Amino acid sequence: MIKAGIIGVTGYAGEVLIDILLNHPEVRIVNLSAKVAKPQQIAEIFPKLQNRIALICTEPDLEEINSQCDLVFLALPHTVSMQIVPKLLKAKKKVIDLSADYRLKNIKIYKKFYGVSHKDKANLKNAVYGLPEIYRNKIKQASFIANPGCYPTAAILALAPLAALNLIDLDSVIIDAKSGVTGAGRKPSEGLLFPEINEDFKAYKVNIHQHSPEINQVLSGLSRKAMEVTFVPHLLPLNQGILETIYVNKAKSAKPAKTKNLAELYKKFYKKEPFVRIKGEGLFPRIKDVVGANFCDIGIKDCGDKIIIISAIDNLIKGASGQAVQNMNIMYGFPETLGLL
Amino acid sequence: MIKAGIIGVTGYAGEVLIDILLNHPEVRIVNLSAKVAKPQQIAEIFPKLQNRIALICTEPDLEEINSQCDLVFLALPHTVSMQIVPKLLKAKKKVIDLSADYRLKNIKIYKKFYGVSHKDKANLKNAVYGLPEIYRNKIKQASFIANPGCYPTAAILALAPLAALNLIDLDSVIIDAKSGVTGAGRKPSEGLLFPEINEDFKAYKVNIHQHSPEINQVLSGLSRKAMEVTFVPHLLPLNQGILETIYVNKAKSAKPAKTKNLAELYKKFYKKEPFVRIKGEGLFPRIKDVVGANFCDIGIKDCGDKIIIISAIDNLIKGASGQAVQNMNIMYGFPETLGLL
Amino acid sequence: MIKAGIIGVTGYAGEVLIDILLNHPEVRIVNLSAKVAKPQQIAEIFPKLQNRIALICTEPDLEEINSQCDLVFLALPHTVSMQIVPKLLKAKKKVIDLSADYRLKNIKIYKKFYGVSHKDKANLKNAVYGLPEIYRNKIKQASFIANPGCYPTAAILALAPLAALNLIDLDSVIIDAKSGVTGAGRKPSEGLLFPEINEDFKAYKVNIHQHSPEINQVLSGLSRKAMEVTFVPHLLPLNQGILETIYVNKAKSAKPAKTKNLAELYKKFYKKEPFVRIKGEGLFPRIKDVVGANFCDIGIKDCGDKIIIISAIDNLIKGASGQAVQNMNIMYGFPETLGLL
Amino acid sequence: MIKAGIIGVTGYAGEVLIDILLNHPEVRIVNLSAKVAKPQQIAEIFPKLQNRIALICTEPDLEEINSQCDLVFLALPHTVSMQIVPKLLKAKKKVIDLSADYRLKNIKIYKKFYGVSHKDKANLKNAVYGLPEIYRNKIKQASFIANPGCYPTAAILALAPLAALNLIDLDSVIIDAKSGVTGAGRKPSEGLLFPEINEDFKAYKVNIHQHSPEINQVLSGLSRKAMEVTFVPHLLPLNQGILETIYVNKAKSAKPAKTKNLAELYKKFYKKEPFVRIKGEGLFPRIKDVVGANFCDIGIKDCGDKIIIISAIDNLIKGASGQAVQNMNIMYGFPETLGLL
Repeated sequence: MIKAGIIGVTGYAGEVLIDILLNHPEVRIVNLSAKVAKPQQIAEIFPKLQNRIALICTEPDLEEINSQCDLVFLALPHTVSMQIVPKLLKAKKKVIDLSADYRLKNIKIYKKFYGVSHKDKANLKNAVYGLPEIYRNKIKQASFIANPGCYPTAAILALAPLAALNLIDLDSVIIDAKSGVTGAGRKPSEGLLFPEINEDFKAYKVNIHQHSPEINQVLSGLSRKAMEVTFVPHLLPLNQGILETIYVNKAKSAKPAKTKNLAELYKKFYKKEPFVRIKGEGLFPRIKDVVGANFCDIGIKDCGDKIIIISAIDNLIKGASGQAVQNMNIMYGFPETLGLL
Repeated sequence: MIKAGIIGVTGYAGEVLIDILLNHPEVRIVNLSAKVAKPQQIAEIFPKLQNRIALICTEPDLEEINSQCDLVFLALPHTVSMQIVPKLLKAKKKVIDLSADYRLKNIKIYKKFYGVSHKDKANLKNAVYGLPEIYRNKIKQASFIANPGCYPTAAILALAPLAALNLIDLDSVIIDAKSGVTGAGRKPSEGLLFPEINEDFKAYKVNIHQHSPEINQVLSGLSRKAMEVTFVPHLLPLNQGILETIYVNKAKSAKPAKTKNLAELYKKFYKKEPFVRIKGEGLFPRIKDVVGANFCDIGIKDCGDKIIIISAIDNLIKGASGQAVQNMNIMYGFPETLGLL
Repeated sequence: MIKAGIIGVTGYAGEVLIDILLNHPEVRIVNLSAKVAKPQQIAEIFPKLQNRIALICTEPDLEEINSQCDLVFLALPHTVSMQIVPKLLKAKKKVIDLSADYRLKNIKIYKKFYGVSHKDKANLKNAVYGLPEIYRNKIKQASFIANPGCYPTAAILALAPLAALNLIDLDSVIIDAKSGVTGAGRKPSEGLLFPEINEDFKAYKVNIHQHSPEINQVLSGLSRKAMEVTFVPHLLPLNQGILETIYVNKAKSAKPAKTKNLAELYKKFYKKEPFVRIKGEGLFPRIKDVVGANFCDIGIKDCGDKIIIISAIDNLIKGASGQAVQNMNIMYGFPETLGLL
Repeated sequence: MIKAGIIGVTGYAGEVLIDILLNHPEVRIVNLSAKVAKPQQIAEIFPKLQNRIALICTEPDLEEINSQCDLVFLALPHTVSMQIVPKLLKAKKKVIDLSADYRLKNIKIYKKFYGVSHKDKANLKNAVYGLPEIYRNKIKQASFIANPGCYPTAAILALAPLAALNLIDLDSVIIDAKSGVTGAGRKPSEGLLFPEINEDFKAYKVNIHQHSPEINQVLSGLSRKAMEVTFVPHLLPLNQGILETIYVNKAKSAKPAKTKNLAELYKKFYKKEPFVRIKGEGLFPRIKDVVGANFCDIGIKDCGDKIIIISAIDNLIKGASGQAVQNMNIMYGFPETLGLL
């Protein structure tokens, strides 16, 4: 039985993480902490947890956390995680960080997109990017995971087969992404009030979103070529879920035979993956089918010179807490789907 | 052509008020003000107004407002209005106050529900409660209007015929009210974030809402007896609109003949009212039918000893800015529906 | 391992029932049927089930069902169930019927509210009303359960303590109920199209809803007096969840001491219930906290002569499929919360 | 005063058209018709119109329509319009057809996308495509208008400046379009039920939507080159509004100076247009700003080799009924914004 703690538990990802771990047969949650006005039963903060867990949420006390936990999940805002991770790793704890702090290997790019200098280059080197479908072997050995961003998870899984097989023109990748509002976190802000979002839809951070370099880093690695995607995120008037519609040009070098049956190619690439589901010809994912689940659904349309790929995930599950538990399962040698199906 | 100003224009009621006034043939908006970081084109604050109005929104400058305007609308938070109204009235401006500051005649009750002592008893006496269907004659003479609350508008119009004719047991009135989220104003708050409201529904301020005494005051006046309603407001996951389901016991003293055909009784009571629509037998209002309009729709069901009345308004129109313009029309002797149909 | 079948699986309750049973350690789903154009993988009908279940959904074949199943859930429209139940019971199958066909003991009332004569009086007598918190002992012995309606579940649990202890005036009970749209089922109809529901709210079947007699039957039983509630259902623009705001007058005969601390009284009444959660003083349920779960949350406010009780459930879980599985757990002697927490 | 009729008034476009025409000072609605079970007051069909219009909606009677109306709007399903238009034009009526029947000049393409052969080639030739910003001069002379589709309106206005000036690679145009649900019309269908759309988002008719050829036809005309866009529509969980995110490659032949300041280029192109609003640098449209209005908002981002253009309209107004009235204003020589601002 793993003794797990969650730091930053009062955000949306933290709330979902509790829910998943409570149904996981190999985990006991032993410590919950967050920025709170006063120590309080977690079931008072989240009344939906009443009758399910009796644990007090306090301000993070690292000494206590280190003494109680085997594994610590960080569901903290960006730039906060890197102040805490070194102390946990020094105490030999396993750590899964859901923030962006250890995802980008290039600290200049980190600074450009997150606005601050990186403060923990030592551990940055050892952080494993926790996308199991691509880096499972590294995750098996890892004690410190940088859990992927939500948009990158859907984008990378949608593009990995084509990038790895060098079937596409890497400069042509356009990702038109749409996310539910929990992706923006639980911070009071006029722009996220119900009447500002409901019955509205808009793009934001047009081609300057901080998840672009994360996608570039992984796809460049897979294709062994530098590349930059065009990435436009939009805000959907719904709670949970991401759908990305991706447009690419086939590589001129790609032999037609190679791209003949793309759905088959994807099915083969993801043959052993329990959480990636490839749609049949003419079928496409919808957010409804993945909400509440750790799946990534992918549909593909061959349009001659272009390919359209559509992928969908739950931003809080496969895009955050579910993937974190999937990583945990791999790190500890549990069945990968344990507690997640 | 009336020269009008709006103080507190950046809230939801202010935004809707601009929209209505821009289509009013007898009004020119000449001054817009609110708590703003810096003077700014109103069309930059509300891009939907681009190409429709070119006016800069500044911090309120009362000297300027008094020199430019004939009529001033206050769309301010409660307790702020009463600091400004005296200065406008002193300058002989006509004033329509959309806040609650001048609605309650009893300052003890004001203090109990709004948490502060009233600061302008002098003008409180002269404020006319701007519900045209009940107080039209007073409004005609008035230069200072306390524009009714949204919940009270729907409740009073639903109950006025029965209260005025003493057909109901006044202690039995139960108002189960449901409002869209714009009713809560445009203030950043965790509880009003999109994911906290969407797919949720809940009661709040259960039987302690500050609109109860406003309803009591008017209905007590109409029935010439003290009375207190039971009032439970709820928050609907939608932007605009209020629906109230009201339950009353018939008065034992009421002769059966009097309550025989309630829809007819209501139709007669509101015969000359352009903005009250009484539903036929078996039909009931819905929010959809009143959103964007200044109507109050009312349906009635006779259940023997009990009567169920259901009323619906747009909280920002008949429940705020539309009613304010209706009051303006009456004050200035314009056709009452001008700019509102 | 119980071998279970679901007839009528393509509706909302059926879909949720699959989801719950797939996570139940003592059940194997062996037969899925519904009115379908052609036999089809259930994961094609509900793509969210892909990778989770491989079973073909066919038209119901009772011979096959009887030969394969120990237990059959009926998620059929009203009036259809009673054509099928006799054949299942004759074959000695255990049956949990989610329709209304066997809930009302009085066949005249059944005819009045459902428009057809009852066709299976023999089994009607033996059907046990499956509300575990009230009828657990009967359920333990039962082989045929009439699973309660969604509105009645929330209403009865909210009122049972007061009715059983005779603390309220039974004629005064007013239930103002609000339900999400899945309560209306998955039948194409203009009135249920997205734009007809979204941004709208309305009452329907005002005081003539078919769930009223179900509530009356149980509360009359508990209080040992005939009674009829006033019941007004409304349609919320959200998918899942019911919230009911209930108003009652205290019985004049009730000693003040008895109703002194109502929250305590409720907590005591439901002390051993795993799925009923009583809110503390000043706290009230919200739909968000029960969606996806088998809980019924209840908050109580003492208003002197009146009491306000607010209850919330997920209409598809505690109001349908979750309660059905709770009943199954009791019938088979499993821990009552198995697969439900 | 124009005497206008609307055939097919019970759909969403018809409903909005009544609303607009009721506020138009130069129009009197004299005939309303649609497929209806029996003649009925339009205010019974749409209770929101009560107190605003007293007119009976009947089955279309062309003799009566021709005798009463100067101008007829057709808000009919595709393939129905072309059965009626000839009879109206023969009677010398002016006609604005909101369906797709007369938009595509190539009848083979019409057949491919709408599944039937065109039945009125004679009038097809004379139909003017009613996009005022592009074809104003033709509209002035026209007596028969094919009112544009909703997606094409937003797409063409977004791309017209670049296409007309030959600044882009025409084969590179990708239109990622998102529409509210009223775009699908008011027909009962399981897929459009509230719970199927709410909290969901999905693509449909991926690159095979019938609006693609309409966009191709106009852009090919503007650029004087054949071209085909990549077009993926998606369904948003909201009632009204379209937002399109469009990606194009700059033409290699385009001199850098030409595309230096794209917002300025757009502002110049649309300088005299009352209903096209170009956003400043770094600003982008949102659906909220155009709902209820006849505006098309456009924002542009220069990304080096690529350009991203985002446009937003209300699908029922600028995408249907508002544009129809704008066309009417032009045909009759009224100020173009009359009744629309």
